[in-house]
Amino acid sequence: MIIASVPDFREAARRRLPRFLFEYMDGGSYAEVTLRRNISDLEDIALRQRVLRDVSDIDLSTSLFGAHQALPVALAPVGLAGLNARRGEAQAVRAANAANVPFTLSTVSACPLPEVAAAATKPFWFQLYMIRDRAFMQDLLAQAVEAGCSALMFTVDMPVPGSRYRDYHTGLAGSGGLKGAAWRVAQAMVRPEWAWDVGVMGRPHHLGNVAPVLKGNTGIEDFFAWMRGNFDPGINWRDLDFIRSQWKGPLIIKGILDPEDAREAAKAGADGIVVSNHGGRQLDGVLSSARALPPIAEAVGDDLTVLADGGIRSGLDVVRMLALGAKGVLLGRAWSYALAARGQAGVAHMLRLIEAEMRVAMALTGCTRIDQINRSILAA
Amino acid sequence: MIIASVPDFREAARRRLPRFLFEYMDGGSYAEVTLRRNISDLEDIALRQRVLRDVSDIDLSTSLFGAHQALPVALAPVGLAGLNARRGEAQAVRAANAANVPFTLSTVSACPLPEVAAAATKPFWFQLYMIRDRAFMQDLLAQAVEAGCSALMFTVDMPVPGSRYRDYHTGLAGSGGLKGAAWRVAQAMVRPEWAWDVGVMGRPHHLGNVAPVLKGNTGIEDFFAWMRGNFDPGINWRDLDFIRSQWKGPLIIKGILDPEDAREAAKAGADGIVVSNHGGRQLDGVLSSARALPPIAEAVGDDLTVLADGGIRSGLDVVRMLALGAKGVLLGRAWSYALAARGQAGVAHMLRLIEAEMRVAMALTGCTRIDQINRSILAA
Amino acid sequence: MIIASVPDFREAARRRLPRFLFEYMDGGSYAEVTLRRNISDLEDIALRQRVLRDVSDIDLSTSLFGAHQALPVALAPVGLAGLNARRGEAQAVRAANAANVPFTLSTVSACPLPEVAAAATKPFWFQLYMIRDRAFMQDLLAQAVEAGCSALMFTVDMPVPGSRYRDYHTGLAGSGGLKGAAWRVAQAMVRPEWAWDVGVMGRPHHLGNVAPVLKGNTGIEDFFAWMRGNFDPGINWRDLDFIRSQWKGPLIIKGILDPEDAREAAKAGADGIVVSNHGGRQLDGVLSSARALPPIAEAVGDDLTVLADGGIRSGLDVVRMLALGAKGVLLGRAWSYALAARGQAGVAHMLRLIEAEMRVAMALTGCTRIDQINRSILAA
Amino acid sequence: MIIASVPDFREAARRRLPRFLFEYMDGGSYAEVTLRRNISDLEDIALRQRVLRDVSDIDLSTSLFGAHQALPVALAPVGLAGLNARRGEAQAVRAANAANVPFTLSTVSACPLPEVAAAATKPFWFQLYMIRDRAFMQDLLAQAVEAGCSALMFTVDMPVPGSRYRDYHTGLAGSGGLKGAAWRVAQAMVRPEWAWDVGVMGRPHHLGNVAPVLKGNTGIEDFFAWMRGNFDPGINWRDLDFIRSQWKGPLIIKGILDPEDAREAAKAGADGIVVSNHGGRQLDGVLSSARALPPIAEAVGDDLTVLADGGIRSGLDVVRMLALGAKGVLLGRAWSYALAARGQAGVAHMLRLIEAEMRVAMALTGCTRIDQINRSILAA
Ligand SMILES: Cc1cc2nc3c(=O)[nH]c(=O)nc-3n(C[C@H](O)[C@H](O)[C@H](O)COP(=O)(O)O)c2cc1C
Ligand SMILES: Cc1cc2nc3c(=O)[nH]c(=O)nc-3n(C[C@H](O)[C@H](O)[C@H](O)COP(=O)(O)O)c2cc1C
Ligand SMILES: Cc1cc2nc3c(=O)[nH]c(=O)nc-3n(C[C@H](O)[C@H](O)[C@H](O)COP(=O)(O)O)c2cc1C
Ligand SMILES: Cc1cc2nc3c(=O)[nH]c(=O)nc-3n(C[C@H](O)[C@H](O)[C@H](O)COP(=O)(O)O)c2cc1C
Repeated sequence: MIIASVPDFREAARRRLPRFLFEYMDGGSYAEVTLRRNISDLEDIALRQRVLRDVSDIDLSTSLFGAHQALPVALAPVGLAGLNARRGEAQAVRAANAANVPFTLSTVSACPLPEVAAAATKPFWFQLYMIRDRAFMQDLLAQAVEAGCSALMFTVDMPVPGSRYRDYHTGLAGSGGLKGAAWRVAQAMVRPEWAWDVGVMGRPHHLGNVAPVLKGNTGIEDFFAWMRGNFDPGINWRDLDFIRSQWKGPLIIKGILDPEDAREAAKAGADGIVVSNHGGRQLDGVLSSARALPPIAEAVGDDLTVLADGGIRSGLDVVRMLALGAKGVLLGRAWSYALAARGQAGVAHMLRLIEAEMRVAMALTGCTRIDQINRSILAA
Repeated sequence: MIIASVPDFREAARRRLPRFLFEYMDGGSYAEVTLRRNISDLEDIALRQRVLRDVSDIDLSTSLFGAHQALPVALAPVGLAGLNARRGEAQAVRAANAANVPFTLSTVSACPLPEVAAAATKPFWFQLYMIRDRAFMQDLLAQAVEAGCSALMFTVDMPVPGSRYRDYHTGLAGSGGLKGAAWRVAQAMVRPEWAWDVGVMGRPHHLGNVAPVLKGNTGIEDFFAWMRGNFDPGINWRDLDFIRSQWKGPLIIKGILDPEDAREAAKAGADGIVVSNHGGRQLDGVLSSARALPPIAEAVGDDLTVLADGGIRSGLDVVRMLALGAKGVLLGRAWSYALAARGQAGVAHMLRLIEAEMRVAMALTGCTRIDQINRSILAA
Repeated sequence: MIIASVPDFREAARRRLPRFLFEYMDGGSYAEVTLRRNISDLEDIALRQRVLRDVSDIDLSTSLFGAHQALPVALAPVGLAGLNARRGEAQAVRAANAANVPFTLSTVSACPLPEVAAAATKPFWFQLYMIRDRAFMQDLLAQAVEAGCSALMFTVDMPVPGSRYRDYHTGLAGSGGLKGAAWRVAQAMVRPEWAWDVGVMGRPHHLGNVAPVLKGNTGIEDFFAWMRGNFDPGINWRDLDFIRSQWKGPLIIKGILDPEDAREAAKAGADGIVVSNHGGRQLDGVLSSARALPPIAEAVGDDLTVLADGGIRSGLDVVRMLALGAKGVLLGRAWSYALAARGQAGVAHMLRLIEAEMRVAMALTGCTRIDQINRSILAA
Repeated sequence: MIIASVPDFREAARRRLPRFLFEYMDGGSYAEVTLRRNISDLEDIALRQRVLRDVSDIDLSTSLFGAHQALPVALAPVGLAGLNARRGEAQAVRAANAANVPFTLSTVSACPLPEVAAAATKPFWFQLYMIRDRAFMQDLLAQAVEAGCSALMFTVDMPVPGSRYRDYHTGLAGSGGLKGAAWRVAQAMVRPEWAWDVGVMGRPHHLGNVAPVLKGNTGIEDFFAWMRGNFDPGINWRDLDFIRSQWKGPLIIKGILDPEDAREAAKAGADGIVVSNHGGRQLDGVLSSARALPPIAEAVGDDLTVLADGGIRSGLDVVRMLALGAKGVLLGRAWSYALAARGQAGVAHMLRLIEAEMRVAMALTGCTRIDQINRSILAA
């Protein structure tokens, strides 16, 4: 299959992964309204073409949280992504490091923090969920410090997990025990390449970081149950003090969709936020990121670093998000599809595509530096 | 079939019911414009996500017409629903009672009032149509009082019955006599499970409450003819006096779409109204409930209890309707699909789904009690 | 096939007619934008439901141009419609007469004026195109007077004929001579019922009224060529004087879409106009009738009788058009489909459907007389 | 296949061309948002029908840059179009000359300038890209002067080439060398008519004008690579001086989408501009031409000749663009499809269709001369 775009990587991933993994990655919660809005609202943002401005020298680099990076792009935390390829997060972090963009490791990754740290050649970011067991959180934070993580992303939009109907249909959620497992094995059997390369050779399939607290129930059928049982719905602004006491580096709050919450985050001393609806995987029906972003950037853009994610499928979309007020973006499914399709080389290829596409978008809107991208490049 | 949502129950019902029953339940009148609007307009209502508010303690209970209930939800009156499963309304009322939400028995139910009363463990609501024969109405009202019904829902949007093209295509409407019956039998034959369980074992198939006045013509082919002949198009505000003289309990007028009519209902002394277009089954082309509701709630929300129904397919939709101004909602097709798919257990499962989905919606809009749900949780 | 609606008649017609006839009737010009808009814009007009108004006594009758009729509906002039069934216009006029609604005979009908007059039991309307040969027009007008036609509909939106791509694809237009004829015969062969009943038994297939001037070239392959050659693009307001000199009865100008033209028509002494885009068959891209109508009714509604047509597929649509300002409507494809599907009985059935549907729409908007229908029954 | 419209020509081209050529011509860049908008935004422009104005004498002719032409239409520069038929540009220029509309030869045509000049019977226009090698540009300009070209179209919206995913999928882009070539040969094999007529008999397949600088790498697999390497991203307003110094005739800047750039073009002394997004093939997500045009025409319509292209698929669309402010339009895919489908005769046929369709549009908007077409013929 010839790959020329992120949607091509999606299709290649669909062909390679067992269905339960593909649908898990591809799907959204409930009626998937927000999932669709993320993409269609971005598409509706019209760029303003300018011509005959010398664009021979385009610089895509930027700095986020004090570190220089090649593109205003980072890989988003994606739980279980490591199952998309053998020891997947280790492959992904290498691709990200090589391209000089930050990689974010999810709390619920397949590879544990130390394994990713060993694979990495540059500092990476770590994403943390609020978990009832504070001692365990403390332990994770200590590991992140130990691994030299350069930023902590604290995800706040999952006080309770949303329901993704597709996961029930594939047996990933809901059907505990043998029945679900048998159903997943059947789905893996028709993807023999993945079954051998990842399923067999990529073992063990612990959820790297949370394995200790899963206490032996390491199968992914326990994953959602564990999340329901251990995620803390009592999470609130005061909990940030606890995090702050354990983490002195840059702190990014992920999952903000409202200007008031953004202001609160600034007041609470966050260094950055991610305007995000969790890729349409939590509260279905909320605004797309593209629509939520502008008033938030307006409200707090001067006080902290506003990132955004959701629905970005090309370098053009990256430029749109920057024009709407983001200083940088996260790619979620984009890199996950690429990893599933072609492993580390896929992630590298995907990042090259994003770069090339950003170049065209900047050239034709007349921008040569990232900080020139703003609302003036959008058509009224 | 794995069921994780109301749309799944719909699909399961489609597979289990004879076509004429499924289409009867699923369809709307004329071009089905309002049927589609009910769903798409709700989908368009954007929720406003809030984070880091302690939502560990969410209370979904509420009180309607003086009675406490577990969810701000009631099962809508659905004619013939009893045919979806063996002695269907009896099964449904048990599921509703167990979940502590009101069940509403339709005038044109399959099980008669006393049968449902015998199955019920809690008071239920009774729905009444305006029928030419006032003595018969009086008799029905007496039965409702006798059965201890806790509210009377008086449906006013059917002075004449709308035409549902699907019912003609399946032979449920229009083709009287043997031809229609044969066509329906053929449709039942390819659903042997239903044919045996309900068709054979669930007899008799009288229209429980109206059987006396159908005078021996008990087949459902007489149903629509009877409705056309006996429903009273002369129904008007003064008829409420007649009802009031027979019924001392809470009176809910169902089928209001206009603020002026809502004000009239308040003036006429109704205790509640249901903003409803009969699930898109009467005048096609009228506003969706989601669009009709806000000005009505504005106009009379302080004077009487405003309920709403139409297009609700998830707990998220329930929350949307409450945010638009309803104090509670009715579920029509949702419970009918569930009953057809899995009987009483299906209805119970469906209510658990609604509850779980409401919890996520409340948690992520930062609400912990039903009365906190209002327009402030909608994105501007 | 069970028929419960106008769309059902459409499907039945599709099954019965040779393709070239069905596509001719069903299609619109160019990209068919206006054809689609006619239907979707009507669908978008939201009705305002009112309840508890006594609607036991609904009167659908009205008067147009001094004559009483059962419904505010007339059959539109439809060229070649007579080919849809054996001696089609004669069948249609009988159905219309029986239902007491006006029938309009097209200039380019299959049955000539005298044949239709012989079949009719009531006066009908005659539609006239502007033709270069004024002597021929004079002759047609004389025939109409002779036949006792009760109104003249002068169609002004065809100074040049629009192109309907479907007609080229079926060989009805463009491929003159043997090739086109052979192609049409092939299409008729797979519709043997029509081929025998209409094709063979319904002869001759002259274009009844224009046969004299076609001078022996009577095949319909000459129809479009003749129209292109003989329709008068020089037609203008002054030509009305010529018509007026030949016709003393009610004069209706058909094909008005603009308020300025409507005012002109009033000034020129027309008795009525039809707001029409020729069913999306002339200038594609013009406004739907539903959108063009309100400002026109506003401009001239007091000065002349405003009728409208285009996209009406149910009695609900009739009520919508009246609410938008029309005093009556024309049905084009609705009766043509019905005639093709079931002949005279089909047209009668279709009119009963329209009536029943209007009744429901009026009952549920709280109207009991046609003159109560106005913008107040539309949702804001 | 019967052809009655530009979309028919598209379908015929799809059947005749090897896939890589069809997709190259048909496709747009990235997610093809702008490609779709070009068509749908034009479709949304509602024409205002007027009646009873004498339109017996319609004149479609106009003058552009001092030359009289039969229609306000020109054939757009289309790279590689010459491969659609044997020595394609030579055929197209003959058709254009016969119809008396300007033909524009692309820099990256298949036939070189002298070959087209030899085929032409009238002056044609030449389109120039900014190329790093100024000596080569100078040489091309000299050839254009030599060939008597009557206008120079300087395309400015390709400082860098956009990516068209379809071209990667067909192997036209991306897969250099043998693999891509083999894949293209396979696609040609299933189109034997084209393979023989064009592929074999139409040789050589140089890129006529740029062959000299391709230095022997003449296959089209080198085309995109060459464009990436030799197009000049440093192109800016000052480069116009260089052009002006070599070209004294009418200068048209192609690829303007913004009023500010349009004003700049006027200031820089251009004679005309083309409002264009390169047919949705460069920066995806920019405004459709139909939406970009009005403010530009407003800004500079008095100062220079505003042309427009993008999405025009009928004579109705031509009239819409004129109504939006263009003095003339370019047809891109329209003529390319026609050339692929039927060669020179196809292009001639397509132009006759456009003319006939324009006539209907003008007749029914009440215009008899091109300069009467303006915003007053659009519905508000
Ligand atoms: C399969 C999957 C798993 C995810 N897991 C996490 C996670 O563990 N932690 C987190 O903060 N966000 C998670 N997200 C959300 C992403 O970080 C990001 O917000 C989202 O994917 C952005 O939308 P996009 O996929 O359209 O780019 C996940 C997203 C996906 C698709
Ligand atoms: C199959 C069916 C039968 C119904 N029968 C009745 C009825 O007998 N009485 C009544 O008041 N409403 C009746 N309704 C309307 C429902 O009470 C309710 O208003 C509607 O179903 C709500 O829309 P929903 O189905 O989208 O939830 C019926 C609805 C359906 C779908
Ligand atoms: C097949 C066909 C033929 C028609 N022929 C004529 C005609 O001869 N004269 C005329 O004034 N209008 C003619 N019309 C237009 C109709 O009178 C009417 O305006 C149109 O059909 C209304 O739209 P509707 O078909 O959506 O109801 C024709 C329409 C159709 C569909
Ligand atoms: C296959 C193809 C090749 C093109 N090549 C050129 C070119 O070489 N130079 C140029 O200025 N524009 C080029 N264009 C853009 C056209 O000149 C024109 O702007 C565009 O086709 C107009 O849109 P339309 O195809 O929808 O009519 C090309 C367009 C197509 C479709």
